[in-house]
Amino acid sequence: MSLHERLTAELKELEPQIIRWRRHLHQNPELSFQEEKTPAMIAEILRELELDEVRTGVGGRGVIGVLKGVRPGAVVALRADFDALPIQDQKEVPYKSTVPGVMHACGHDAHTSQLLGLASVLAKHREEFAGEIRFVFQHAEEESPGGAIQMTQDGAVDGVDAIFGVHLWSMLPVGQVFISPGPIMASIDDFVIEVKGRGGHGAIPDETIDSIVVGSQIVGALQTIASRNVSPMESVVVTVGTFHGGDNNNVIADSCRLTGTVRTFMPEVRDRAQERLTEIAQGTAAMMGASAKVSYIRDYPAVINSEKEAQVAREAALAAFGAERVKPMKPLMGGEDFSYYLGKVPGAFLFVGAGNPEKLANFPHHHPRFDIDEDAMLVAGELLGRTALLYLEKHSS
Amino acid sequence: MSLHERLTAELKELEPQIIRWRRHLHQNPELSFQEEKTPAMIAEILRELELDEVRTGVGGRGVIGVLKGVRPGAVVALRADFDALPIQDQKEVPYKSTVPGVMHACGHDAHTSQLLGLASVLAKHREEFAGEIRFVFQHAEEESPGGAIQMTQDGAVDGVDAIFGVHLWSMLPVGQVFISPGPIMASIDDFVIEVKGRGGHGAIPDETIDSIVVGSQIVGALQTIASRNVSPMESVVVTVGTFHGGDNNNVIADSCRLTGTVRTFMPEVRDRAQERLTEIAQGTAAMMGASAKVSYIRDYPAVINSEKEAQVAREAALAAFGAERVKPMKPLMGGEDFSYYLGKVPGAFLFVGAGNPEKLANFPHHHPRFDIDEDAMLVAGELLGRTALLYLEKHSS
Amino acid sequence: MSLHERLTAELKELEPQIIRWRRHLHQNPELSFQEEKTPAMIAEILRELELDEVRTGVGGRGVIGVLKGVRPGAVVALRADFDALPIQDQKEVPYKSTVPGVMHACGHDAHTSQLLGLASVLAKHREEFAGEIRFVFQHAEEESPGGAIQMTQDGAVDGVDAIFGVHLWSMLPVGQVFISPGPIMASIDDFVIEVKGRGGHGAIPDETIDSIVVGSQIVGALQTIASRNVSPMESVVVTVGTFHGGDNNNVIADSCRLTGTVRTFMPEVRDRAQERLTEIAQGTAAMMGASAKVSYIRDYPAVINSEKEAQVAREAALAAFGAERVKPMKPLMGGEDFSYYLGKVPGAFLFVGAGNPEKLANFPHHHPRFDIDEDAMLVAGELLGRTALLYLEKHSS
Amino acid sequence: MSLHERLTAELKELEPQIIRWRRHLHQNPELSFQEEKTPAMIAEILRELELDEVRTGVGGRGVIGVLKGVRPGAVVALRADFDALPIQDQKEVPYKSTVPGVMHACGHDAHTSQLLGLASVLAKHREEFAGEIRFVFQHAEEESPGGAIQMTQDGAVDGVDAIFGVHLWSMLPVGQVFISPGPIMASIDDFVIEVKGRGGHGAIPDETIDSIVVGSQIVGALQTIASRNVSPMESVVVTVGTFHGGDNNNVIADSCRLTGTVRTFMPEVRDRAQERLTEIAQGTAAMMGASAKVSYIRDYPAVINSEKEAQVAREAALAAFGAERVKPMKPLMGGEDFSYYLGKVPGAFLFVGAGNPEKLANFPHHHPRFDIDEDAMLVAGELLGRTALLYLEKHSS
Repeated sequence: MSLHERLTAELKELEPQIIRWRRHLHQNPELSFQEEKTPAMIAEILRELELDEVRTGVGGRGVIGVLKGVRPGAVVALRADFDALPIQDQKEVPYKSTVPGVMHACGHDAHTSQLLGLASVLAKHREEFAGEIRFVFQHAEEESPGGAIQMTQDGAVDGVDAIFGVHLWSMLPVGQVFISPGPIMASIDDFVIEVKGRGGHGAIPDETIDSIVVGSQIVGALQTIASRNVSPMESVVVTVGTFHGGDNNNVIADSCRLTGTVRTFMPEVRDRAQERLTEIAQGTAAMMGASAKVSYIRDYPAVINSEKEAQVAREAALAAFGAERVKPMKPLMGGEDFSYYLGKVPGAFLFVGAGNPEKLANFPHHHPRFDIDEDAMLVAGELLGRTALLYLEKHSS
Repeated sequence: MSLHERLTAELKELEPQIIRWRRHLHQNPELSFQEEKTPAMIAEILRELELDEVRTGVGGRGVIGVLKGVRPGAVVALRADFDALPIQDQKEVPYKSTVPGVMHACGHDAHTSQLLGLASVLAKHREEFAGEIRFVFQHAEEESPGGAIQMTQDGAVDGVDAIFGVHLWSMLPVGQVFISPGPIMASIDDFVIEVKGRGGHGAIPDETIDSIVVGSQIVGALQTIASRNVSPMESVVVTVGTFHGGDNNNVIADSCRLTGTVRTFMPEVRDRAQERLTEIAQGTAAMMGASAKVSYIRDYPAVINSEKEAQVAREAALAAFGAERVKPMKPLMGGEDFSYYLGKVPGAFLFVGAGNPEKLANFPHHHPRFDIDEDAMLVAGELLGRTALLYLEKHSS
Repeated sequence: MSLHERLTAELKELEPQIIRWRRHLHQNPELSFQEEKTPAMIAEILRELELDEVRTGVGGRGVIGVLKGVRPGAVVALRADFDALPIQDQKEVPYKSTVPGVMHACGHDAHTSQLLGLASVLAKHREEFAGEIRFVFQHAEEESPGGAIQMTQDGAVDGVDAIFGVHLWSMLPVGQVFISPGPIMASIDDFVIEVKGRGGHGAIPDETIDSIVVGSQIVGALQTIASRNVSPMESVVVTVGTFHGGDNNNVIADSCRLTGTVRTFMPEVRDRAQERLTEIAQGTAAMMGASAKVSYIRDYPAVINSEKEAQVAREAALAAFGAERVKPMKPLMGGEDFSYYLGKVPGAFLFVGAGNPEKLANFPHHHPRFDIDEDAMLVAGELLGRTALLYLEKHSS
Repeated sequence: MSLHERLTAELKELEPQIIRWRRHLHQNPELSFQEEKTPAMIAEILRELELDEVRTGVGGRGVIGVLKGVRPGAVVALRADFDALPIQDQKEVPYKSTVPGVMHACGHDAHTSQLLGLASVLAKHREEFAGEIRFVFQHAEEESPGGAIQMTQDGAVDGVDAIFGVHLWSMLPVGQVFISPGPIMASIDDFVIEVKGRGGHGAIPDETIDSIVVGSQIVGALQTIASRNVSPMESVVVTVGTFHGGDNNNVIADSCRLTGTVRTFMPEVRDRAQERLTEIAQGTAAMMGASAKVSYIRDYPAVINSEKEAQVAREAALAAFGAERVKPMKPLMGGEDFSYYLGKVPGAFLFVGAGNPEKLANFPHHHPRFDIDEDAMLVAGELLGRTALLYLEKHSS
């Protein structure tokens, strides 16, 4: 029986432990940039595994475990995030969050637990592979600028040849994995447009510059970014989420404020959207005698899987789960700071189905009743483990 | 010396008293629909004049004094309002308001005082004219639905042949009077448009109906009421004063709310504006898959002076002040519930300059430092008194 | 019997001749800037009257007759225009136009005939007034830049103290006259906006700049001139009359062309409209990456009657016709080059009702079946004659 | 040497003949639905090959040749189109079009010639494969509704298991082939929006319904189809290519006419776009008091390659040309009536690079100087031939 096959069996044996870890984390969630007990627990477990190295406080609160194989070779990193969200847990389960207003509503508890499980298994087999596996436990994925940017600055992927990560997904059925090359999660930008006109009496418009009329024209003109400025073959969303102006129905509003989000995949599309948004807001305001101050904040870049690494993961998945359980993944318009690792090294971000209505694991991510089918953790561990081993095999002479 | 000429002289004699009354009222302002001491003081003064009749509590808080001439004839009413505003007086004068947050910031104290002065003078000359002069002191002009509607329902102008009123105006120079036939103050309507779309994730617009886009289209289309739907020879203003929608830049807003005002002079223009506003809001929303609930509240109608009565006032003014001090009046886009009297009987609403920078009487109405040049009160009294007498002369056989 | 009264009687006597003149002109219309026989006929008639001076070729094709009174005094000018329109006469009357495609469809034949009649009468009474009456017969009112600009440049109103003109109006009832001070006919401006984008394949918008989208945005934004930039108390019309762009439904249009008209009364409103139109067109285009070339051609200015001269005309009209037949005039959004005279000297442009359904004189001006009630000519002559005499009386010592 | 390998060699031998055919067709182009000599020549060549069956007049003007292998098996169809375009050939080459205003400006001459060459080679090897190869020569691809719809109705792909076609592409480099599953060419729809308002004088907008304002609002609102109504993960283009309204700058246009194109890939997106376009046009017009008549004509559906057949073609291509010359293909927003065959049977539409600046084969399709690098014909023939053989091998027991 190959190491790949034994991996599956040994993860299965460890499953009760993995579930215990996950439920412990679920009951004790910690918010982004405030994680203390979680990284401490991770570090403790990794140390017990007698890894070659355990670094804590990486980029602030991250933890890294290094597992070296029998001889030098390629270096592959596996990443899990471990922060929770400011949401009140409304599930009725024994492992419900014990922290008021804080909840693992996105599955990071499971990400971390399965990777701890995988590390536990692989630590016993270091004689059987060449190269190095680096376990990257990341804080603060939920809050921009996320932990990934800090960890990469602190060397988290220095020397790494490829990185892989998974996201459990409650909207996809448990038992299946989803892998595609290319764009997989969107870049996320935020903007604020502050329109300054000149307020005045609602019955004397000619002595004013009506900021609400200007703001409305800007909203209209922004629609042309998607319809005219970006190729129909590419994706872009420009949403004005809020529009607030005026205090009194009888008074022409001096100013109004629009905020929104821009989502794209390709960097050149992102540049074009930012450029056009700025031109439209400022140009429309100027044309009306008003002014517009545009703040455009680039949040996470898009997650774009590299062709070859996605192919390795797919090959490993096909071997592990068979063709019926391996699907292509449609890109999501949400964002992930996994993109910062991919800005440094090639890799792929993989999705693992975690949805199961029978277990009430069918609420969307960030929902107060969000939960996963815990079976998904073994799938994720197996996928990452086999991908890492296959990658090392292919890249170690 | 004619009665007209003696009127001028006797008002001059009474001026110190008129000023005392005005300053007393200025120091003791009362809000609309809360007037108590003011109508009591008015009634007391009128009773001392031994008028033919003094009615109190007219339409709630109004006071009416009736002065009958030597023999029956036409009936002319003269109106003054007496309520104050919820504004903190920020002037530094000895007669500053003593009521925190309440102020005569529109000159109604002076309107009332000059009319009391005029009543005092005319009461001595009832043998010298035929017909009847009715002094109408009105509460609650500042707050819709105003006191005029109540007073007319309570018979304030029953049997009246013509009504006249004045407004002192700090933005016009003291010493001058302004008289025009036709539209003189606008109708005032308020509206609320509640747009209901379907909210959702900011990156998934196709599963939503973006209420902010719909609201913005409505604002744009509303501009065509003035530009296309109303004759350029007529006046209309449609202002969206507030636009509020959305809580989060990443979320497509489920609904937004627009409020505004419509100002016109002619009833058919008012009808057209309301009709088009409703069609535009509902039609635009429907076209986008959203819905719009429109609340349209008709406030005061326009003040439209009748041709003949304005001409009588002008003739009286020319005799009193000479051609250099009598000007045509440009209509104002503000409103006045004097329109309710004009809905019952013919009449005219006249403006009397009360501005004088040297006396710091150059702040706009409703400004915390608003004041008048008190000289304007004699002008107003003389204008109303001579107009009433001339009217009676012309209409009594 | 005063001269004023005799004027009426003598015009009545001359009526058959006036009608003959008018019908002759009606049968022999001449287009603007092509008038030959008409000015020749006018000059011949004036010469037969033995006026003090008859000038021909004034400003090209105009004719001026000078009638001096018994002694020097004020100089009053009376103007009539005499050009026809490129319209096929579709009336069935004996005096129908004999020139194919050319027709007196605006009443200029009657303007000229009544003024010839008035000159004929007044020429017999030069001993009875002081000062001078100048009869100004103008070519080319219908086509911009009109004859008035040429005639004023050629001295037509040099030395003139006041000028009066009439327009017969088929939409107003015969027998009445309409006189108001202030704005009476609009300024007329024409504009062309040429939007230049970048054409391309209809399915690849991102490589183009869609000029039709830009043009549409301009049309939308132009609505705000009337709704936001001009006082509701003033009049403005901005109409885009034509929009043409694109040859092929599959191709994004490289450019489009908008043409339109702007109508206002007040010079400052006109300036504001031109300024905003230019800013909106250029600013919108720039904001979209396109460019807009704006040609703005100022045609006739507004006709704005001077206060005092309008009052003289009104006084004369009241004396001649009584109060029931003298009405105020609502401004018209059409234009007239009488404004060029008023740019040089004070005066008033007066309207005389010429409509009468029983005589089929109820078609709008410029209609192929346009006609007037010929009775209106005596009214016009009497109005102008009495106004001129009254003016001279008031202004001659 | 396998049949696959011999195919390559034998096509190379036949190349001079293939080029002669292509140049003959290039000099004698025939317009869509007017092809006579071209199908006659094709039929003659096929008959000389002694195929099992040659049908002419298929669906009007199509030609089909049937080549049966040694024993029954799967049936694979290979399609080439043969019509030309109404464009004047402006190249300077010996084989320039001899028909004024008609030109093979899209490479259909080469499509047909290479398929004739392939048929010639395969006809010699019918003993070496099982199943049947059907050569489908199609008329009228360039003009909607194209020849494919007629040919499928006439049984062209009855009994076929899979169909393949190629398009030579001058914008891609010669020597390379481009193969992808999924959407590869867009659906093409045309629309006409006729807006009917109410015309009138340019200065009296309130008596009109301004169709140009309405048309402009429709153009603006149509932008929201791409920006709000269709998923950013999908493709849609809505282009208004022409906007025509109004004859006179002084007259408000009674009506205007917009025409445009809609391009999509997915049927549900196509449905949504049509639905929204209709709602927006009609709803906007209604909201403004106008009406809009929408004609929406569905032209070719999208070409969507089936997964498995594209994979067969890719496998054959990799074997023939090696990985460096086989690329994925980005979808094109243009259309092709190959989609009608794919509506009946699975298959794939493949692209073969035909661009070569050194041979002046670098003008876009439909350009008057369009040409191909004739080397591309052998690549196309080899690609289709090997794909057909591989398909038959895989699907014949």
